[in-house]
Amino acid sequence: MKFDFTTRVFEKEKITLAGTEEYIVRGGRHLFSKLPEAFVGINRIGVIGWGSQGPAQAQNLRDSLKEAGSDITVTVGLRAGSSSWSKAEAAGFTESDGTLGEMMQVIAQSDLVLLLISDAAQAELYQDVFKAMKKGATLGLSHGFLLGHLTSRGESFPEDMNVIGVCPKGMGPSVRRLYEQGRTTEGAGINSSFAVEQDIDGRATDYAIAWAVALGAPFSFMTSLEMEYRSDIYGERGILLGAVHGIAEAMYRRFVEQGMTPEQSFNETVESITGPISKTISHEGIKALYSKLSPGDRQTFEAAYSAAYRPAREILQEIYDEVASGNEIRSVILAGARLQEYPLDTIDNTPMWKVGSRVRAARTAESAPLNAFTAGVYVATMIAQIDVLLAAGHVYSEVVNESVIEAVDSLNPYMHARGVSYMVDNCSTTARLGSRKWAPRFDYLLCQLGFPRVEAGEAADPELIKAFEAHPVHQAVETLLAYRPSVDISVSA
Amino acid sequence: MKFDFTTRVFEKEKITLAGTEEYIVRGGRHLFSKLPEAFVGINRIGVIGWGSQGPAQAQNLRDSLKEAGSDITVTVGLRAGSSSWSKAEAAGFTESDGTLGEMMQVIAQSDLVLLLISDAAQAELYQDVFKAMKKGATLGLSHGFLLGHLTSRGESFPEDMNVIGVCPKGMGPSVRRLYEQGRTTEGAGINSSFAVEQDIDGRATDYAIAWAVALGAPFSFMTSLEMEYRSDIYGERGILLGAVHGIAEAMYRRFVEQGMTPEQSFNETVESITGPISKTISHEGIKALYSKLSPGDRQTFEAAYSAAYRPAREILQEIYDEVASGNEIRSVILAGARLQEYPLDTIDNTPMWKVGSRVRAARTAESAPLNAFTAGVYVATMIAQIDVLLAAGHVYSEVVNESVIEAVDSLNPYMHARGVSYMVDNCSTTARLGSRKWAPRFDYLLCQLGFPRVEAGEAADPELIKAFEAHPVHQAVETLLAYRPSVDISVSA
Repeated sequence: MKFDFTTRVFEKEKITLAGTEEYIVRGGRHLFSKLPEAFVGINRIGVIGWGSQGPAQAQNLRDSLKEAGSDITVTVGLRAGSSSWSKAEAAGFTESDGTLGEMMQVIAQSDLVLLLISDAAQAELYQDVFKAMKKGATLGLSHGFLLGHLTSRGESFPEDMNVIGVCPKGMGPSVRRLYEQGRTTEGAGINSSFAVEQDIDGRATDYAIAWAVALGAPFSFMTSLEMEYRSDIYGERGILLGAVHGIAEAMYRRFVEQGMTPEQSFNETVESITGPISKTISHEGIKALYSKLSPGDRQTFEAAYSAAYRPAREILQEIYDEVASGNEIRSVILAGARLQEYPLDTIDNTPMWKVGSRVRAARTAESAPLNAFTAGVYVATMIAQIDVLLAAGHVYSEVVNESVIEAVDSLNPYMHARGVSYMVDNCSTTARLGSRKWAPRFDYLLCQLGFPRVEAGEAADPELIKAFEAHPVHQAVETLLAYRPSVDISVSA
Repeated sequence: MKFDFTTRVFEKEKITLAGTEEYIVRGGRHLFSKLPEAFVGINRIGVIGWGSQGPAQAQNLRDSLKEAGSDITVTVGLRAGSSSWSKAEAAGFTESDGTLGEMMQVIAQSDLVLLLISDAAQAELYQDVFKAMKKGATLGLSHGFLLGHLTSRGESFPEDMNVIGVCPKGMGPSVRRLYEQGRTTEGAGINSSFAVEQDIDGRATDYAIAWAVALGAPFSFMTSLEMEYRSDIYGERGILLGAVHGIAEAMYRRFVEQGMTPEQSFNETVESITGPISKTISHEGIKALYSKLSPGDRQTFEAAYSAAYRPAREILQEIYDEVASGNEIRSVILAGARLQEYPLDTIDNTPMWKVGSRVRAARTAESAPLNAFTAGVYVATMIAQIDVLLAAGHVYSEVVNESVIEAVDSLNPYMHARGVSYMVDNCSTTARLGSRKWAPRFDYLLCQLGFPRVEAGEAADPELIKAFEAHPVHQAVETLLAYRPSVDISVSA
């Protein structure tokens, strides 16, 4: 067992994923009543920042605690003069009732500080944050980035605080959206990992689990902050954002070159991924997608898979190496310094994504086909991502959530409803930067190494297909399907 | 004056580039007779490695010293069992006459060790190399990479050796090709920078200049190894390789989308850049290219320039930051470890470059047009590269050689004759990796930020065009034209 933990309040459950055991905690609204007990010693929770995770977490925590009849106050902390002030007010946080205030003041008065400001801001402000915190308070992170930054500077967290992580495996808007759906459908929510980096009072584990439960996570698994930031920064550069964007562009262009209309091509690539491919994987697993293809389509899938696996794996291994070495974190910090002069623009001003909004507007329930070629390329990239993570020692819960569930249950539905830019640009700045950096790399290498194999009529690689069919991840995905919410996320256009 | 030096043997010449003064050394075959005096104390020169620079430098040095009647021996050192052994033999280096041997043995017996193995190999072997070298010998580098690597590890060169750099501003094959042309045309050669990092005996500067002269450099300017590796690693990721590849792909695709045939589009983009655009800049400067456009074409140029400058500058600033921070060097080292499993494949298997070889085969002297849109995008990228270097404090000789002369007089002629893969893949592994990494970034950002401006009919940015017209670099380029060889490089298909 890689990670074990003790909880006084919740139930830990042993599960077996592809032959390996893990302890996890199932969530649910019936557990909200346990929050006061689990949060013992905490009177004020400060949610710092209003980016991707901030709005979702502040509202979910407030609503869950209210439902539990707890008198813990959830206060949003923002920089003075922040443009998000009015958005927080619109969500019901106000200065007058003490639930909205200046960041450092909120930090100073909170027993649990959820630091949800951008990674660049964390890197800039962490010393002030540490100084401002009460002695013995708990620092909560939704991402291990700060640990990576400290490590690359040879520093560490102050010793007199708990440090915990709760990292939802979905972007902020989906964390809120599914929580809302969960009011009427038990079990709806975004899975989460949790980590206990420092525990000075024996309460850190229950704080972490309570936080995850209060966010609405139906399934929480343990990791370390280091494994979290590796898999998270890597995953968003891979199949979650960067890779899906890059391979979609490459495949769209290829179909147009082969004579499809732009609309048809968009339908056979992006719509196919965000529609039937994601839906099938979400409900039945990766293998099921393949199994339900006709014999002819399977051949197409296999050729596409064989062509795409190698280039995808090469780029994914590069991403993993860059993240694990600290390079990618340093790049994000450097990029932060340039954002003033070169702000991030949208990525969907190109003809392809304009076609996409027309296609979405004209969409009917049946219009998106399950294109076997597209499925082959997409699944090859997903499996390559999984293989890199497994080789690096990540637990199956993390691998599957970061490579499969977050894609098909959180992000792709947003791309399906609102386009690629909405999906990418509602994630963290670190994710947005990484997606812009790596998407083009997947595109180019697929075109340079992958497609020429297919155009040359090269047959599928039987070894690769055998490995795919026998891949242990299928079993893990299918086991985790039992923990899946009974509803899909519902996103309006 | 940023860099000054004292030479006992050669003549230093003060030049003024855009109002700033630099000392440079003019080369020429008439100076070969001075090589014995300048190389005093050196009996054996070891040229280690047979990659891009190795073959060119070993042969040029040997031929120049022979012409000077010197009895200095030039010996090529390779790893035992290296696949380059037979290539070195074919170039006239043999074990029997002591001009070819095992790397570490050659290093141990040389008074001047030119370490031209790949950057990754340098990073792997530098401690062995330092140990193997004779006390008091001179280490010669054609690239500051090793300094960057040492710096990022908090190390430095051993104190008991001279450390010099001579860094030709062109890829190896061009260094050899123009040297050969120089036998009949005085002044043909590739410009070079030189650096004196450590001088323990007062001879290092003349060793460096002699080395540059022997390679056939018509113009040598001083820099530091740090500024060299910054500008070099940056430049090859920019206009020299990465950027020209990426913008060519983006523009080609755009013209095809607008209805051109693939052949016509290739002609109006790649052929235009490597043909008339490069030729005009090479002979008359950047401004001349603009001046000779018709009024209508100027408008097109200005719109393209205005759209492309901002995205190009953004990516170029990112590249510079990554290089200066040491990140890019660490990435190259990490990539080196992956090359075994993921060897570099060619980059020209895509339909566009297949079209390219047909276009090249059918080429006539007049077939490539000066396309004003292509020129606008290309020149905007070149000027953006120059602006980043100037802001970072590089001297004009370095800026112009690394951003203009190396492009139009060394690399683009190879792309013109043999295609993009030949150009990219005959540079160092560091350059090849960097080009693959950054080309797609230029492509995407140009398509996302640049082209939509043009398609929307946005007019040129008058401030940007004014800055272009009044840019001090034009004067520097025109001054340096006087030092240009009287012949173009001649490259067969």
